[in-house]
Amino acid sequence: MSGQIDGEDGAGGAYRGNRDTAQVDMAMAVPRRSGPLTRPGARVVTPSRPVPGPRDVVEGPIPLPATESVPLDRICTVERHLDEILAAVPQPHPIELAVLDAQGLLCAEEVASQRALPAFDQAALDGYAARAEDVEAALPQAPVELAVVGESVAGASAPSSIGPGLALKVAAGAMLPAGADVVVPAVWTDQGTVRVAVHAGPPAGSYVRRTGDDVAPGDPAVQVGTPIGPAQISLLAAVGRERVLVRPRPRIAVLSAGTELVDVGTVPSPGQVVDVNSYALAAAARDAGAEAYRSGILPSDPRRLSEVLESQLLRSDLVLVAGTFATGGFDQVQEALTELGDMRFRQVTMHPGPSQGFGRLGRDEIPVICIPGEPVAALVAFEVFVRPAIRLMLGKRQLFRRTVQAVAGQQLVSPLGYRQYLHGTVMRHPDGGYVVEPVGDGTDALLARMARANCLIVIDEDVTEVAAGGLVTVMPLLLGG
Amino acid sequence: MSGQIDGEDGAGGAYRGNRDTAQVDMAMAVPRRSGPLTRPGARVVTPSRPVPGPRDVVEGPIPLPATESVPLDRICTVERHLDEILAAVPQPHPIELAVLDAQGLLCAEEVASQRALPAFDQAALDGYAARAEDVEAALPQAPVELAVVGESVAGASAPSSIGPGLALKVAAGAMLPAGADVVVPAVWTDQGTVRVAVHAGPPAGSYVRRTGDDVAPGDPAVQVGTPIGPAQISLLAAVGRERVLVRPRPRIAVLSAGTELVDVGTVPSPGQVVDVNSYALAAAARDAGAEAYRSGILPSDPRRLSEVLESQLLRSDLVLVAGTFATGGFDQVQEALTELGDMRFRQVTMHPGPSQGFGRLGRDEIPVICIPGEPVAALVAFEVFVRPAIRLMLGKRQLFRRTVQAVAGQQLVSPLGYRQYLHGTVMRHPDGGYVVEPVGDGTDALLARMARANCLIVIDEDVTEVAAGGLVTVMPLLLGG
Repeated sequence: MSGQIDGEDGAGGAYRGNRDTAQVDMAMAVPRRSGPLTRPGARVVTPSRPVPGPRDVVEGPIPLPATESVPLDRICTVERHLDEILAAVPQPHPIELAVLDAQGLLCAEEVASQRALPAFDQAALDGYAARAEDVEAALPQAPVELAVVGESVAGASAPSSIGPGLALKVAAGAMLPAGADVVVPAVWTDQGTVRVAVHAGPPAGSYVRRTGDDVAPGDPAVQVGTPIGPAQISLLAAVGRERVLVRPRPRIAVLSAGTELVDVGTVPSPGQVVDVNSYALAAAARDAGAEAYRSGILPSDPRRLSEVLESQLLRSDLVLVAGTFATGGFDQVQEALTELGDMRFRQVTMHPGPSQGFGRLGRDEIPVICIPGEPVAALVAFEVFVRPAIRLMLGKRQLFRRTVQAVAGQQLVSPLGYRQYLHGTVMRHPDGGYVVEPVGDGTDALLARMARANCLIVIDEDVTEVAAGGLVTVMPLLLGG
Repeated sequence: MSGQIDGEDGAGGAYRGNRDTAQVDMAMAVPRRSGPLTRPGARVVTPSRPVPGPRDVVEGPIPLPATESVPLDRICTVERHLDEILAAVPQPHPIELAVLDAQGLLCAEEVASQRALPAFDQAALDGYAARAEDVEAALPQAPVELAVVGESVAGASAPSSIGPGLALKVAAGAMLPAGADVVVPAVWTDQGTVRVAVHAGPPAGSYVRRTGDDVAPGDPAVQVGTPIGPAQISLLAAVGRERVLVRPRPRIAVLSAGTELVDVGTVPSPGQVVDVNSYALAAAARDAGAEAYRSGILPSDPRRLSEVLESQLLRSDLVLVAGTFATGGFDQVQEALTELGDMRFRQVTMHPGPSQGFGRLGRDEIPVICIPGEPVAALVAFEVFVRPAIRLMLGKRQLFRRTVQAVAGQQLVSPLGYRQYLHGTVMRHPDGGYVVEPVGDGTDALLARMARANCLIVIDEDVTEVAAGGLVTVMPLLLGG
């Protein structure tokens, strides 16, 4: 489908709020605490009206001094981190694929037809090829009779020509005989086989597909940037193409980092958790259009770790690592990554999962995106940073999911200075528009709750509270969209 | 994504018009002919107002006598043919797949967790595990000091317990020490390592994920009928599932029939055409969620033909044959099919492509759908009959594409008694809603034109004309939707 109907940019496209705001107040709303929140180092925004109506979302640019906990050069907005990733991801070279394997990808060449389509004048439907002037006077009450000289079916090569007073019975797709300039639909006749009575005469050219009507030799058939779907495959085959140059699926290696991780087949000991990220992120990357390899848990031995990372860089267009970075204990992964090139770990002003990393590593400067190890934060970071990067590598014009405005079914709170992403359930409202509810209580995202969600609720950095009934931005998580 | 947001049925769901109307007037509007159309055997519907506004689509039940050309028992509405297909397609048995391969399919079992998630009490963020009563009085101007007894990271097994006046530095995901009932976010403290000054005390339970908060042992994790996406894969892995029972992709064999057909690698002689249908339909079937095999052109030798058909029946859940049936010349395919079981060829009151067939053949009564050989009509028939059947086999609740009402940008004409499907381009209107234009002149669909379309325009059986500005039903052809 072309972009006309899904023309809106997603939340990542339209930046709202102060791009250079740099706060690291990680305070979240304390669950179920009544009254205004007291947070050290942050002003509290309280709604001026207790029950605001739609569009009364509490807003206001409230710059806060950054705390001392994180160096300023490691604090970054969602947009800046995303822009840096999008500016650095490579555009994989086009490759030639069999037309059926090209499905879903973007055409990377101007396919000009070497042939005319149709290749010959043909009947557009079952009927009688005739001369328009012979039948123009025909009426139901005064039919015109023609002699049927024969029959031509689709695939027959050399039909006879016809002269005045004659007709050739033709099947849809059959070659038109020389001399004929019209096909009289069979249902407008008595369907005779020796002689045919014609009850109506269509104008010259009717129900005839002329050579080249669809595509003339040299005409562009499929153009650069066109998404290849069944209709394009149909056209490519018709012009004789068995293979076509396309933007390939980017190859993405998905790795998990963390000494607490065990593989899914292992029963975790106390303190250990199952590696769910390499599965979930490989699935998400495939859904976004990538060719994803689940490479599993990174080894903790430094030498093996570097080997694994280097081998992934060699075979990938992008490497995705989910892990708990910058909190101590896993610095061997950060160190190993940093040894391979310019790798930056930073606090992005988003929740969940502000700890993000990006770099271009190895001889080929392969982009490496590090996202949080907490599984809900990992899938949020995937949506925000990785999916747009995959779509950019695929050549898609629409990098971001479509967003809609929805009425919040309950109060939503959000940390000041952070863009908050909450999993929710969005439904059509009987009166039109959408209503959204967070899954769970909206303060902590857990796996079972996330699995019940069908959208992300996006709350801007400068909003700390959306009252019940207020409007909020919602990103429906349609699979394959 | 759950069904809540895409809850509308497509055009096939809500039947409008007279179900038992049986007309075989194949007359189409004559291109570019001014004035009312004269059609033998059919009344002409002319608009009462020359420039009707929106909703003034010319309608009216105009029963017409059926022509004699087709026996009445071989005439059928779109709905009746579709209902027959949907009633007959099998529900393939669930199969167990590795979780990553289950992506996009529907879960076919109730997955109950054997484990608690989280498996242990843990910190929800980086901070200090403490006793809530110790820190409840803390204020920025009057911090509470605690002694830091150590540090616990994610994956560490046995953290020390803490008593009054003590704190344990914890990373997000780390096990909570015995005695602690709160995690003070690091940014609410001076982040000390020996002693820590706490500036605010959250209530007991804050920033703690308790054992089983997400999933208790025995809780349902993923339920029957849930579409498996990244979030479900995450949850399945977390509860220790490497494999899951799902509704499998139906296996669909795609065949082309027609003595005029040559394979795409061959340069067609005069009268011959390239087989585009087996490519385009295999692509469409994959896009709809099937595992499609392109089996190519059916042989014309009767014995070989029967062998190929029988072998396809053995390995398929559904067989799709595109070809020009019931117009003479290809009866060997019709004959071969009819010998294998109860196969019905009929005229469906739709345009393009009224010649449709359906049967259940072979020992296992495999459904066989025959659709027109003309490539545009073939893809229309795929949308109308085959895609809903594939989605039913996948277990999807939404069989039909979502439709929208759009303003016709130009006059559209349609044969009376036939449901007309026109390829078009739908765009959002600046003032809201949608505008749709047919590709080409709206009377003849050709491949290059179809490839520029992003929707099907659906004109009901009892409508012969939609004036420019009138409202018409549009089915956007989103890939993967």
